[in-house]
Amino acid sequence: MTARRDAGRPRGKPIERAILAATLGELAEHGVDGVSIPRIALACEVNKTTIYRRWPTREALVAAALEGALRESAEELRDTGSLRGDLRLLVGVITARLASPAGRALARAAMSEQSAAEVGALARDPGVREQDAAVALVARATARGEWDPARHAPDAVLAMIVGGILHRVLLERLPVTPEWAEVLVDVIVCGLTPDRPPA
Amino acid sequence: MTARRDAGRPRGKPIERAILAATLGELAEHGVDGVSIPRIALACEVNKTTIYRRWPTREALVAAALEGALRESAEELRDTGSLRGDLRLLVGVITARLASPAGRALARAAMSEQSAAEVGALARDPGVREQDAAVALVARATARGEWDPARHAPDAVLAMIVGGILHRVLLERLPVTPEWAEVLVDVIVCGLTPDRPPA
Repeated sequence: MTARRDAGRPRGKPIERAILAATLGELAEHGVDGVSIPRIALACEVNKTTIYRRWPTREALVAAALEGALRESAEELRDTGSLRGDLRLLVGVITARLASPAGRALARAAMSEQSAAEVGALARDPGVREQDAAVALVARATARGEWDPARHAPDAVLAMIVGGILHRVLLERLPVTPEWAEVLVDVIVCGLTPDRPPA
Repeated sequence: MTARRDAGRPRGKPIERAILAATLGELAEHGVDGVSIPRIALACEVNKTTIYRRWPTREALVAAALEGALRESAEELRDTGSLRGDLRLLVGVITARLASPAGRALARAAMSEQSAAEVGALARDPGVREQDAAVALVARATARGEWDPARHAPDAVLAMIVGGILHRVLLERLPVTPEWAEVLVDVIVCGLTPDRPPA
């Protein structure tokens, strides 16, 4: 295969998308630490410098690839009119992400011991958009009277939801069935409903 | 250092304990795939065959080391008289385990892509004893009228508890504070209390 020079050629969106897609593929196959820019350049038939010009470091490239993938899923987290509906959607979006090898590779990388700083930065950066969606979900539930965030801190509740799914998929290695997901959603919705005095 | 031969010597418990402790240290430092029997033999000043005689494979040795560590924590999961108390204890035991490098290494290994079969077998084997403790916790709550396991499947609820803590410690890399733990326990206890009709 010949790596062809593309200096001077207009940088179309399709090439960017191809590079980011190839990056997600690398991430899925080799993990964050194994992402190879030379291999991506070869696969997309561009010069390495074409990649480095847009994304100066491997970390920036991986972050951009993840950002694109996460933006899509965050956009799905619309207002369904109830906390129960919003949580069902959230569980579905997270489950769909973990259904792909790239999604599982990201989750494992984010929990890995090595390259904690590097991966932490990645997780924070593209995570912002998702966190915005989660903050909006909590704000809607609070406005509806379904969640008292002063009593039930959102970070703890969201950790139970995301962590529960990670436990199911990565540790138990079992599928998230509709029945399993409904138990999780039901416990959270009933647990948050503030018509019960604190113990 | 000289590896001394101990064939014919009575196999005292202290040597077994030393070998299993050294195995936990290896696990913490090198992960499941990096546990080295020669290094353990050297550290404990025994011949490798002394180890292989009791534990024919590295997997058996690691499983035995984990079994010992988990047995201790499972024994702490006593009946406190209420689901809330039992869950507080469970969260404390899991948090304490993840406070050690060996505990975090095991959790990461159990979720890793590589050596899925090997690690899965390890996780299942020593996990049995812990699962017994969890089953007893659920049975007590059911008997007290605090949990309807037909409506809220224990595997989903336990995944939310363990997964929530894993998310906090491994992914967010933040400490499990008493306030954070109380939100988790409160959501679960209120969510399970079966005085609310299913939606």
